[in-house]
Amino acid sequence: MSKLRLRASMSLDGFTAGPQQSKNHPLGLGGMRLHQWAFELAAFRTMLGMGDGGIVNDSTPIIEQQFHNVGASIMGRNMFSPLRGPWLDEEWKGWWGDTPPFHHPVFVLTHHARAPLVLKGGTTFYFITDGIESALRQARQAAAGKDVSIGGGAQTAQQFLRAGLVDEMTLSLVPVLLGSGERLFENQGDDLHGLELVQTIATPEVVHLKFARP
Amino acid sequence: MSKLRLRASMSLDGFTAGPQQSKNHPLGLGGMRLHQWAFELAAFRTMLGMGDGGIVNDSTPIIEQQFHNVGASIMGRNMFSPLRGPWLDEEWKGWWGDTPPFHHPVFVLTHHARAPLVLKGGTTFYFITDGIESALRQARQAAAGKDVSIGGGAQTAQQFLRAGLVDEMTLSLVPVLLGSGERLFENQGDDLHGLELVQTIATPEVVHLKFARP
Repeated sequence: MSKLRLRASMSLDGFTAGPQQSKNHPLGLGGMRLHQWAFELAAFRTMLGMGDGGIVNDSTPIIEQQFHNVGASIMGRNMFSPLRGPWLDEEWKGWWGDTPPFHHPVFVLTHHARAPLVLKGGTTFYFITDGIESALRQARQAAAGKDVSIGGGAQTAQQFLRAGLVDEMTLSLVPVLLGSGERLFENQGDDLHGLELVQTIATPEVVHLKFARP
Repeated sequence: MSKLRLRASMSLDGFTAGPQQSKNHPLGLGGMRLHQWAFELAAFRTMLGMGDGGIVNDSTPIIEQQFHNVGASIMGRNMFSPLRGPWLDEEWKGWWGDTPPFHHPVFVLTHHARAPLVLKGGTTFYFITDGIESALRQARQAAAGKDVSIGGGAQTAQQFLRAGLVDEMTLSLVPVLLGSGERLFENQGDDLHGLELVQTIATPEVVHLKFARP
């Protein structure tokens, strides 16, 4: 069955991005501290076309699973672009260059329509203006039986969690404080909509918490 | 060397107590969900004089360490009493009955002076009105070489963390959401004052994160 999977790196104080996100700081000030554990991994560098090098450790399977059996992704406008309002700059192709590392259709939640953006390597960005359920329906169809991955950011993840649509969640808890930014669990009420902790993988740099429906 | 140790059970959304703390709900609404992992343990039940019964699992060493080599405790007024303002009710002896489970001096941070309260089994509550550093100084002296434990709640923990006074911290992360209440890491800035993750112990019900100075 095609699952909706959420993954996020989160600080000890609950932030998935730092404050003041901008073109120069797509993850907000200090936000890169949440992703250093991934950037040092050979598996991650390979997936992102960052060339050789990198290490192998207990986080490697997390990265491999993250990219395995995903047929489509969904992300918020903020993760695709730092720009607000209508798409005045239709040149913006996202943060990932001409050959994004997705290699599958990506559905971007936005209030502003825009024609699909076809890039190299199998990634096409579709801009969805009629909400998360429409995005999920289209993503599932595009995934053709594979899973759908929610890339972020926090607000997009919150919407899917609150609607009870998430089947699997992997939180990579990084033992640092960011102090401010965007919190993943904000206005989420007091239940996890049937998700339960099923596995913990700990390294000195990051603790991965895997949740699923029992 | 006498260490200052902080321990707390925290929800996935960062709360160490639920909302609406009161005499009927000392941990706030839903707050007991953060402590079920402890209440089921034989080690915890023995320490609290709750009689026989209970189980042994991978959380047992956490509870044993929590009570080991502690010579004095510090807690916030809110953890000692749900009452606000001056000590109109000098009959209030805390939540723990005539024989509290501390068996050592406990220093309660408050704005209102009160005579020391001597209870059975070695527990005396001292009421400290001149701030955290005074409380720590007196607690260290009373501990006579043993460690000092910060019992809570969140605001008290925050003050000691922010001042860089905490030597060891054990966070027991419970994979539930409380939705609201008191957050441990609120207004804490973006550093852990030299504390680093040194050990993770995971069970299906709780993930213990141990921090220390390297």
